[in-house]
Amino acid sequence: MKEKDFVKEITNIDEDIAQWYTDIVLKAELADYTDTKGCIAIKPYGYEIWENIQKYADSKFKETGVKNTYFPVLIPESLLQKEKDHVEGFAPEVAWVTEAGEEKLEERLCIRPTSETIITTMYAKWLNSWRDLPFLYNQWCNVLRWEKETRPFLRSREFLWQEGHTIHETAEEAKERTLQMLNIYIDVAENLLAIPVIYGKKTEKEKFAGADETYTIEAMTYDGRALQAGTSHYFGQNFTKPFEVKFQNREGKEEYAYQTSWGISTRLIGAVIMAHGDSRGLKLPPKVAPIQVVLVPIAMHKEGVKEKAEEIYQKLNKKFRMKLDLRDQYSPGYKFNDWEMRGVPLRIEMGPRDIENGTCILVRRDTLEKITVSIDNLEEEINNLLEAIHKNMFEICKKRIAENTRVAHNFEEFTKIGEKGGFIKAMWCGNKECEEKIKELTAIKSRCIPFEQEHISDVCVCCGKKAEKMVIWGKQY
Amino acid sequence: MKEKDFVKEITNIDEDIAQWYTDIVLKAELADYTDTKGCIAIKPYGYEIWENIQKYADSKFKETGVKNTYFPVLIPESLLQKEKDHVEGFAPEVAWVTEAGEEKLEERLCIRPTSETIITTMYAKWLNSWRDLPFLYNQWCNVLRWEKETRPFLRSREFLWQEGHTIHETAEEAKERTLQMLNIYIDVAENLLAIPVIYGKKTEKEKFAGADETYTIEAMTYDGRALQAGTSHYFGQNFTKPFEVKFQNREGKEEYAYQTSWGISTRLIGAVIMAHGDSRGLKLPPKVAPIQVVLVPIAMHKEGVKEKAEEIYQKLNKKFRMKLDLRDQYSPGYKFNDWEMRGVPLRIEMGPRDIENGTCILVRRDTLEKITVSIDNLEEEINNLLEAIHKNMFEICKKRIAENTRVAHNFEEFTKIGEKGGFIKAMWCGNKECEEKIKELTAIKSRCIPFEQEHISDVCVCCGKKAEKMVIWGKQY
Repeated sequence: MKEKDFVKEITNIDEDIAQWYTDIVLKAELADYTDTKGCIAIKPYGYEIWENIQKYADSKFKETGVKNTYFPVLIPESLLQKEKDHVEGFAPEVAWVTEAGEEKLEERLCIRPTSETIITTMYAKWLNSWRDLPFLYNQWCNVLRWEKETRPFLRSREFLWQEGHTIHETAEEAKERTLQMLNIYIDVAENLLAIPVIYGKKTEKEKFAGADETYTIEAMTYDGRALQAGTSHYFGQNFTKPFEVKFQNREGKEEYAYQTSWGISTRLIGAVIMAHGDSRGLKLPPKVAPIQVVLVPIAMHKEGVKEKAEEIYQKLNKKFRMKLDLRDQYSPGYKFNDWEMRGVPLRIEMGPRDIENGTCILVRRDTLEKITVSIDNLEEEINNLLEAIHKNMFEICKKRIAENTRVAHNFEEFTKIGEKGGFIKAMWCGNKECEEKIKELTAIKSRCIPFEQEHISDVCVCCGKKAEKMVIWGKQY
Repeated sequence: MKEKDFVKEITNIDEDIAQWYTDIVLKAELADYTDTKGCIAIKPYGYEIWENIQKYADSKFKETGVKNTYFPVLIPESLLQKEKDHVEGFAPEVAWVTEAGEEKLEERLCIRPTSETIITTMYAKWLNSWRDLPFLYNQWCNVLRWEKETRPFLRSREFLWQEGHTIHETAEEAKERTLQMLNIYIDVAENLLAIPVIYGKKTEKEKFAGADETYTIEAMTYDGRALQAGTSHYFGQNFTKPFEVKFQNREGKEEYAYQTSWGISTRLIGAVIMAHGDSRGLKLPPKVAPIQVVLVPIAMHKEGVKEKAEEIYQKLNKKFRMKLDLRDQYSPGYKFNDWEMRGVPLRIEMGPRDIENGTCILVRRDTLEKITVSIDNLEEEINNLLEAIHKNMFEICKKRIAENTRVAHNFEEFTKIGEKGGFIKAMWCGNKECEEKIKELTAIKSRCIPFEQEHISDVCVCCGKKAEKMVIWGKQY
């Protein structure tokens, strides 16, 4: 009975992707809801994806000279107040500690929604001379934003992330760093998670509270929505002036430092689910999959099957993240479904006859293709297939973006195309009013102003006045 | 001038170790005070020690089947209330979130001081059958305890730690796990940090709030105080009963699971400072030192010196965590002092004459011994010396413990010996009243009941009644 019910337990992705998403998060045991409203518990299978993202991104950061640090989770209200735009942006969604150690606090402390204020305060204390610069610090930590509507990984009140905060001698150097980190995020998305992204600058309306410029990477989900997957901000001196982060420059004069910050979060796990998943469930990119290869022996009771499976497992486990499924309460069929739902990239099936022939069957999660291979060549075959699966997953997403990115020359086209979902390329005059109007009438927001501009028309898609930029638009998660 | 002042800037360790400690934390740039009272910012040089501890401990945990997870930082008050001893122990020192998203909360949320309550709640949801057991989950995270007196690393309101939480089918298995993790902590202290520890069971008075049994590792500081460096707890069913963590056992009957938890924290960085430091400053164990070897070229302006230094640095940097000090605003003498203060285990000095001879000078931080070696043999020499330094640092601490552990047969002896500091071995009747009296009269607390018991006398050192156990006592940090 359990077998038959299995696939039914997951909502059809084409009927109700929101419910499908929740089903997958729970059934693949990535995370679960908790008694703390809006906050999830990340289970081992979900957390290991995060660990693999951390390992990769952290080493990329360190290659560029970034060092890890840790700053307090609690920020005094007075610090949050120091940068006007920042406090306006974040104050409405922070959680406040007002009592501690059985006493009422004199000043409220907020749980960090992001750490610009507390970190910039310390930078002011630590910086003296241009010789000290740059500060290239990062922290891996939890942050809290009191969202009204939440969804596991995608919009959780508490989430895990890294936040890099750098200060520099010159605006040029800081701007370079902003783009350097954006490039690392593109690398993480595309080469680690097999998620192609569009990228560019956010509009004034969509930029980070307190930033001069915000750059973003945006993925496209299975159903053609935009998913912001990482941002990198250039602050100029917006924080360093009110926080007095001064240094003696090479000319012996006092100057304010130039600043950046940049972050990716456990939201990337949501992006992985939403970009790669299908009707059978999760589909994990091989490079971050907690289990890259699952070995399911068939007719386990037959002589020599378990032993051979154990032998192969022991050998391959040194090279890949392996799982040997010896559960005797489930049939092979149930196990196949189960591991497909959990998104394991590659499955090995092996029964008595295969063993006799010195072969086994490899099944790809991405194409469901079955390949008979010699046991002697297993390691090489797996290596090649994991590589091929990564590429294919990337290409599937790439194709989806290509097929669902459309050009709108005027507002009528925009509205019509907008109903299909996907990305829209359209010209924009540069005014916030047009962005706001578009959002109001279509629920579509600007995603980014891509670096590679195309000339679609001379006029803004909304107001018809002279166009300044080509913008990519889309409904978001 | 700067050179002369250098050593003076650090308080004499034998005169005022508390001030020496603060000086070292700040001057070696391990951490700094912040605007959030009682909370520190951990700077790169301090954080990298923590990263090295994490890497080692995490891999040891995983070898025993432990998986990482993440649970919410906020715990509803009602959950904290569920285990009587636990709430009594922790409620007085938690911070409360009472407002969030501009609204007053209906129920207060505390910032986790430890996560037994929220994790056990989830375990109740996830556990069904004995087949699901054990759950071997851990999280690396921040916790908050509203301490009145704080000290960087040693007693910070916020600190970083790992907390492992396991549940098991049987009491035996859970007890075994408790000791298994204690053994990993001994391994971390001794083999990674070069800190020998005493270990054993805490008395009823000193055990964790809610535990049946608490096991501890205790280091001895430079000045002979005890420093609790890690604990492992056996809970029995104390939490699983009120939280209803039930499973169908092998006989098909409902049963409550048996539980453990265990933790080490950034306090270990404080232990490293306090166990190894000396009058010249920090002394870092080679296996966790962010910089294992610093190369200081002498007469940098002379032809070929910088180039040779660069060449050697590039080669060795692949094998060791290296620093090449090319700062031209400081003299070699200043640099020597600086790196000694920062505790770098090994220094390479190299001037024009050395280069001519194909040699350089290695200086050990632990003994200050200078060794002339051939440049061709550098890698091997460094390898051997780092190993030797680790051993020697361990032996110095071991000797300190041996010389400062004394036996007390009666209360008079206890008081007299207690004034000298160090550990005291003395018999104890098993009653809390005697522990409390000893603490009141001498400010000395029980550290642990060691596994290896010695028979010192038949009677309790305090009340003179029949003794139950030999206990190790000591003043603490």
